[in-house]
Amino acid sequence: MTLSTAIDHVQVAELLARLREKKPLVHNITNYVVMSLSANVLLAVGASPAMVHAAEEVEAFVSISDALVINIGTLSPGWVEGMRRAATRAEGLGKPWLLDPVGCGATPYRVGVAVELASLGPKIIRGNASEILCLSGASGAGGRGVDSTAGSDDAVHAAVTLSRRTKAVVAVTGAIDYATDGERVVAVEGGDPLMTFSTGLGCALSATAAAFSAVAPPLEATAAALAVYGVAGKLAAARCKGPGHLPAELCDALYALDAATLAQHVVISERRV
Amino acid sequence: MTLSTAIDHVQVAELLARLREKKPLVHNITNYVVMSLSANVLLAVGASPAMVHAAEEVEAFVSISDALVINIGTLSPGWVEGMRRAATRAEGLGKPWLLDPVGCGATPYRVGVAVELASLGPKIIRGNASEILCLSGASGAGGRGVDSTAGSDDAVHAAVTLSRRTKAVVAVTGAIDYATDGERVVAVEGGDPLMTFSTGLGCALSATAAAFSAVAPPLEATAAALAVYGVAGKLAAARCKGPGHLPAELCDALYALDAATLAQHVVISERRV
Amino acid sequence: MTLSTAIDHVQVAELLARLREKKPLVHNITNYVVMSLSANVLLAVGASPAMVHAAEEVEAFVSISDALVINIGTLSPGWVEGMRRAATRAEGLGKPWLLDPVGCGATPYRVGVAVELASLGPKIIRGNASEILCLSGASGAGGRGVDSTAGSDDAVHAAVTLSRRTKAVVAVTGAIDYATDGERVVAVEGGDPLMTFSTGLGCALSATAAAFSAVAPPLEATAAALAVYGVAGKLAAARCKGPGHLPAELCDALYALDAATLAQHVVISERRV
Repeated sequence: MTLSTAIDHVQVAELLARLREKKPLVHNITNYVVMSLSANVLLAVGASPAMVHAAEEVEAFVSISDALVINIGTLSPGWVEGMRRAATRAEGLGKPWLLDPVGCGATPYRVGVAVELASLGPKIIRGNASEILCLSGASGAGGRGVDSTAGSDDAVHAAVTLSRRTKAVVAVTGAIDYATDGERVVAVEGGDPLMTFSTGLGCALSATAAAFSAVAPPLEATAAALAVYGVAGKLAAARCKGPGHLPAELCDALYALDAATLAQHVVISERRV
Repeated sequence: MTLSTAIDHVQVAELLARLREKKPLVHNITNYVVMSLSANVLLAVGASPAMVHAAEEVEAFVSISDALVINIGTLSPGWVEGMRRAATRAEGLGKPWLLDPVGCGATPYRVGVAVELASLGPKIIRGNASEILCLSGASGAGGRGVDSTAGSDDAVHAAVTLSRRTKAVVAVTGAIDYATDGERVVAVEGGDPLMTFSTGLGCALSATAAAFSAVAPPLEATAAALAVYGVAGKLAAARCKGPGHLPAELCDALYALDAATLAQHVVISERRV
Repeated sequence: MTLSTAIDHVQVAELLARLREKKPLVHNITNYVVMSLSANVLLAVGASPAMVHAAEEVEAFVSISDALVINIGTLSPGWVEGMRRAATRAEGLGKPWLLDPVGCGATPYRVGVAVELASLGPKIIRGNASEILCLSGASGAGGRGVDSTAGSDDAVHAAVTLSRRTKAVVAVTGAIDYATDGERVVAVEGGDPLMTFSTGLGCALSATAAAFSAVAPPLEATAAALAVYGVAGKLAAARCKGPGHLPAELCDALYALDAATLAQHVVISERRV
């Protein structure tokens, strides 16, 4: 059942304007594969990215940042220590932070780290269906490496469960993207299947959601990020004959995004849990 | 002397179709410079890439993967421990793995690690001429940093020697690419000199060969990867006025590659050792 | 006050030709975000890049390299040890090395490392205004993450001070780029504001300056790098509708750069300190 929603293209445009005005400093502890892409996506959308991971300085860096992303894509014990300290400091300072549990389910080590980080108070958790199913406890293991073997529709219930347990807004992305605070479920359409042929676009979406969390409450921030990214991704894919230029086109589309384009393309609906 | 070959464009097309059908999960322990490129090339060709390096989880990840790439481009002791464990587990499980001895010859540390890894049972070893000459023992040191100072023709004998000693298929790439199992030598033409002005294309070729090794024996897999990459590289370079867009064009060409294009452009021959 | 300068577009073109002739091996110990971009920029301009960071091999690699870049963008203790050893060996061998103090001012740890490295004898230091102000001691902290909060004009005096103390040529980049050896100040115009929306272009400029330092004294090398990069950046931005394709267009512009284009676009002037 679809309800009318308070999060529409007008609010998305307002939040995007607020983001560009504030230019939030987004602290990323993320994986090696997507660092460059995440930085470029954050710059294109209007934020100021920084990648800082060492345990020696993450707490100091959290203190000057507006939002934090923790992405476990290429984790190792030294980095996990930095993640712990950064998450704890962000929680202590009341700064929003997002967890991206990349590949949760692929190995026991990865599951353990994801579960621990999820217990440290993220305001947003974003993953694909397999990752959210795993982290919610709905499945002991899932996915295939870092790719999902389930559709996002299949993980909405798990997202609600995970949200209620962690108090985080949980986003599960796929053909349709969903975000829930445990009570409301917002569905965002957009993007393009071509996006699954370009690495790290989900990770960079997480970074985008973190950027929005510096200017809006978690559910609105996440919905705005999904909407902005979905529109830009759709427009970018339409200009590509293959996945090669998609990251560059996505950045151009994010950079050029305006209220009129959002009004034309944003598709958000709200569903009962 | 050139012989007729059992590996022709028809077989290459069949293996590419098989790869796209299976979508093998390719586990990469590779260098920081090329992670994003390797992931995008693997996605474009039809595989499912993952980058996982920590000693704490590589064995578990090898267990769910279809093939493994070990690339020593930006090695350090912690990573080498992950490489050792992953290689040993892959060997134990009978899963194919490929060694890319980047910069072998540049430093004693790098030579030592490459020699050790080559002794752990790779099914394929791919390098440039300097790297293969060094690893075969034909020269104590070679190359200039990570670039070759020799032509691939000069390293064919070293490749055969290295293949006989390690039981791996050895590929040496350059103006012409060669692959040998110690008995047969397959020569593949293609690519473009512009490719030497774009970083990591050799590393991403190694990843592509690993992907093919999930659907074919090592010599056929390597030859197919060289052929596919050579055709896509040639077509991509023809669309570029400089090296800047070459990685994106290469991904588009790999994504669009079909049997007709392969039939038109693949040049494979076989030579006596 | 503007003086006529000995560094003009003719000398820039000569140094570029000398760089392409020598193809210097540039050893990079740099941050994860920009490794791929720095390698591609170095290849496009005509150098041979390598990324090597482990303490176990940096000294051996410095020995075969023509120039060294140390960039603290994503530093951690293990990497800093490699940086120390590489810098000390380069100094001992009389090889030029460049320090890029990314984010200096953002955290006490980062300031401490930057100050220590600056004391080890870099021939060139390049940063944005906030970084140079911090490293010169003009401000205890500055910038916002890795972005500058000051204009390059505001940091010229600090650059001169830093240059006199460290004996390094100091470059501060921004809307106008400056390089000083403590006596002369060279100002280079070029580039485009769009460049601030693409990550790592300053880091890749540092790598370019290091490449030129293999074929010219530090001040001339730095001025040439600023000029070449400024022209290529300006031409590249003119071909872009957003920041997405800017890195690729920059590489194409660097690859195609010739004396005639430099003669048309280079704007260098010299000012009294």
